[in-house]
Amino acid sequence: MTSTDIQFDAQGQLKHFLTIEGLKRDHILQILDTAQSFITLAKKEIKKAPLLRGKTVVNLFFESSTRTRTTFEIAAKRLSADVINLNPQHSATSKGETLLDTVNNLEAMHTDLFVVRHPNSGAANLIAKHVPPHVRIINAGDGRHAHPTQAMLDMFTIRAHKGDVANLRVAIVGDILHSRVARSQIHALAALGAAQVRVIAPKTLLPTEVERLGVHPYTDMHEGLHDVDVVIMLRLQRERMNGAFVPSEQEFFNLYGLTADKLAYAKQDAIVMHPGPMNRGLEIDSSVADGPQSVILPQVTYGIAVRMAVMALIMGGKPVARKRRGNRSTRGSDETTPA
Amino acid sequence: MTSTDIQFDAQGQLKHFLTIEGLKRDHILQILDTAQSFITLAKKEIKKAPLLRGKTVVNLFFESSTRTRTTFEIAAKRLSADVINLNPQHSATSKGETLLDTVNNLEAMHTDLFVVRHPNSGAANLIAKHVPPHVRIINAGDGRHAHPTQAMLDMFTIRAHKGDVANLRVAIVGDILHSRVARSQIHALAALGAAQVRVIAPKTLLPTEVERLGVHPYTDMHEGLHDVDVVIMLRLQRERMNGAFVPSEQEFFNLYGLTADKLAYAKQDAIVMHPGPMNRGLEIDSSVADGPQSVILPQVTYGIAVRMAVMALIMGGKPVARKRRGNRSTRGSDETTPA
Amino acid sequence: MTSTDIQFDAQGQLKHFLTIEGLKRDHILQILDTAQSFITLAKKEIKKAPLLRGKTVVNLFFESSTRTRTTFEIAAKRLSADVINLNPQHSATSKGETLLDTVNNLEAMHTDLFVVRHPNSGAANLIAKHVPPHVRIINAGDGRHAHPTQAMLDMFTIRAHKGDVANLRVAIVGDILHSRVARSQIHALAALGAAQVRVIAPKTLLPTEVERLGVHPYTDMHEGLHDVDVVIMLRLQRERMNGAFVPSEQEFFNLYGLTADKLAYAKQDAIVMHPGPMNRGLEIDSSVADGPQSVILPQVTYGIAVRMAVMALIMGGKPVARKRRGNRSTRGSDETTPA
Repeated sequence: MTSTDIQFDAQGQLKHFLTIEGLKRDHILQILDTAQSFITLAKKEIKKAPLLRGKTVVNLFFESSTRTRTTFEIAAKRLSADVINLNPQHSATSKGETLLDTVNNLEAMHTDLFVVRHPNSGAANLIAKHVPPHVRIINAGDGRHAHPTQAMLDMFTIRAHKGDVANLRVAIVGDILHSRVARSQIHALAALGAAQVRVIAPKTLLPTEVERLGVHPYTDMHEGLHDVDVVIMLRLQRERMNGAFVPSEQEFFNLYGLTADKLAYAKQDAIVMHPGPMNRGLEIDSSVADGPQSVILPQVTYGIAVRMAVMALIMGGKPVARKRRGNRSTRGSDETTPA
Repeated sequence: MTSTDIQFDAQGQLKHFLTIEGLKRDHILQILDTAQSFITLAKKEIKKAPLLRGKTVVNLFFESSTRTRTTFEIAAKRLSADVINLNPQHSATSKGETLLDTVNNLEAMHTDLFVVRHPNSGAANLIAKHVPPHVRIINAGDGRHAHPTQAMLDMFTIRAHKGDVANLRVAIVGDILHSRVARSQIHALAALGAAQVRVIAPKTLLPTEVERLGVHPYTDMHEGLHDVDVVIMLRLQRERMNGAFVPSEQEFFNLYGLTADKLAYAKQDAIVMHPGPMNRGLEIDSSVADGPQSVILPQVTYGIAVRMAVMALIMGGKPVARKRRGNRSTRGSDETTPA
Repeated sequence: MTSTDIQFDAQGQLKHFLTIEGLKRDHILQILDTAQSFITLAKKEIKKAPLLRGKTVVNLFFESSTRTRTTFEIAAKRLSADVINLNPQHSATSKGETLLDTVNNLEAMHTDLFVVRHPNSGAANLIAKHVPPHVRIINAGDGRHAHPTQAMLDMFTIRAHKGDVANLRVAIVGDILHSRVARSQIHALAALGAAQVRVIAPKTLLPTEVERLGVHPYTDMHEGLHDVDVVIMLRLQRERMNGAFVPSEQEFFNLYGLTADKLAYAKQDAIVMHPGPMNRGLEIDSSVADGPQSVILPQVTYGIAVRMAVMALIMGGKPVARKRRGNRSTRGSDETTPA
């Protein structure tokens, strides 16, 4: 069984959510459509659905990220789950307990869903292979491997603001080499049949043979951004940059930081995305981050809805029936544009 | 728009709760009366009201204070809200995200109410100016500026134990200079028309021209406490004291620490208050802290009710109708004395 | 009043849960039977009971233990309580507030139940003596004194897998000297009339005059494990071991680490228990920890049910009526075997 098979049950339904790799277009659309229903819920006076009532969701963050953890915590609470936040580097694992002992123990407490972030690629997969059938795993970022809920909220954002991904040229800019976000975005864009996916970075931050992922590499922003519909900026991990990859922050900003000047190379109605938190003045200029083409804050809003959708679907909530919704190809910005 | 205007809506109702400055007597009485109804709730078998069900309250503490955070967490949970605790110095802001980016992100998650503590004066105001109309802000302490819920629970305590504030002489003792608590108390006592407000401190801990706040400064406890009805001790911030303000802890205790001897200067039935946590043996002697005139623990109890009241009122819960309650001036200790 | 009396009310019902010492067989069986009903609940679709709805449970952990805290947090949330987690070494106590001031303040917030872990023996007792009548205390481990909920889940485990404790020989292996777990287990096994209780450890890790506790001391695993029905391994506190008690980890493992070879000295159907977190390769070998005789993970499952039972009972939940359940001596593994 490969790492991409383990996330499906015998009927081909999503059981865990570990990676975008191996997902079909229909899986992705099912998540996006379900998320759309939670966007509606968020506008109601009482933003709660009882779908996970009586369930225990564990946020198991071996790598700390208050932001991401908060989005999952809010999503789970809006679905009426009980939520337990754990940051195991400060606890049992520091007493010599292994990853799987930690998971075994939590699972023995009759917990139902683990949201796992871990510095090692493959950690969420390892856990998913190991847990009993009724326990579900969501990968909230593992090493350089994948961050699938981030990619799903990015797809939701693109569909909401630009319509069908199949017609679009998308550029991903920044530290492609170390980015689990970029990896998951590339798989999602491929599954949805994006017209063209480009990656833009200095050579030192591009994976070798990146073309094998089906993307077009650029080292120059002018060429790379030319005529694209969507610009996705990545976060430059200051903590990882030590001179080996980037000569200086100033030089990176000059060459790759998204300014109004560089954004002008893209289509006039191109949207600008960023997974956050932003390094203003490093990978993105404030005038662009806060400008009219930015959809960075809507991304955050969609992130809650997408995480609710993934939780509801893998926990067995009835997905939104797709057949009642008419011709897929006509679905686009008018249906999903945020109010 | 001044910092005091921003907390009202077009109808003059409280929308945020940032400072006591600019509040009218009626605003304060509305909060105190609403708090009284939550005192009753706390005595019931099930201490829950559904007023904030489906709402998300974020405790956003840039300065850590487990005590204050816990009171807001308990208050919000008793109102049935979902509560998210964040301590941003440990998270995104340390990755270079700005205060407003943090707030923007949380607000994009459709959160409803931020309880903000911040080391910089004006932080809660800045946030309140910035958020969209449906988001509410409570200032849980900003720099040396204000701590309005603390002042409200102090007013509740005085009214509960001594009746109408208009008839009372109140002394505030200790580090007036650095105290946001004192500043908020002085504004609240003024709005309620206290007969006299005194501040007692060594000269180094009194603001210059403190009389402009309408208070009477004293540097001697004997004179300052003479015939007062209420003694409010402030916490001496050990971490701030470096010899510049106070020669030694022992000398401070000798001159300004509240002992039974010094308390005897006040009226026989004077009450003793302290916002906590106390430095026993520094600003207050244990015999007084635990003695019959101390209302320090009732303050904590009222603190939950007052915070529930502020949350309920600014989130649009129907305030207690004041007209049904008869003549204001007759309301006093018998109505509000704790059981 | 001795430390063992304080946990009963005037009718001899459990009011606090501080120590196993002084509990009668019937108290223990009442907890085990109540826990059994919560095992059933955990298998339902919605794992919630409304017994503590509107109550506030405070996890007050002066010594950090994510694992134990999590079990109490899950237990309280499944009973529908509001839960507040506090780790006071990081907060007010570090500002000079005393233990009882912390407790007084929390109790003034109308909290109902404190789950207390503290490095000092007697801390939970001190708090229980101090709080007003409606507040309840559970000791989640105090110094070297007691860890009564751990002992109760161990008794539940033994009864579930081996039937009536009265017929069993039980060996407790490891750092008896420093172990609050061992102390509570010994009291519980005595109250249930275990046929024989043995303790096995190097002399340096056995309390002087350990026989006074009614146990049989051994320093040799071969002799000590001979023909026992239950083997309870203790966690060796690496942080406490500094050469004074144990020459080296390797030597400890050679002499006292539970391997398949040593386990063969016990009865063929003996069960192996461990309170966790395990030091694999120090006090227990992985082949045993994960082997067919291990009931270490079921212990964790029972731990939630037992903690729910203790919370429900001391908060005044109606206990399981014992008379309806027939002859006690026939209750055994078939009734309580986990599914």
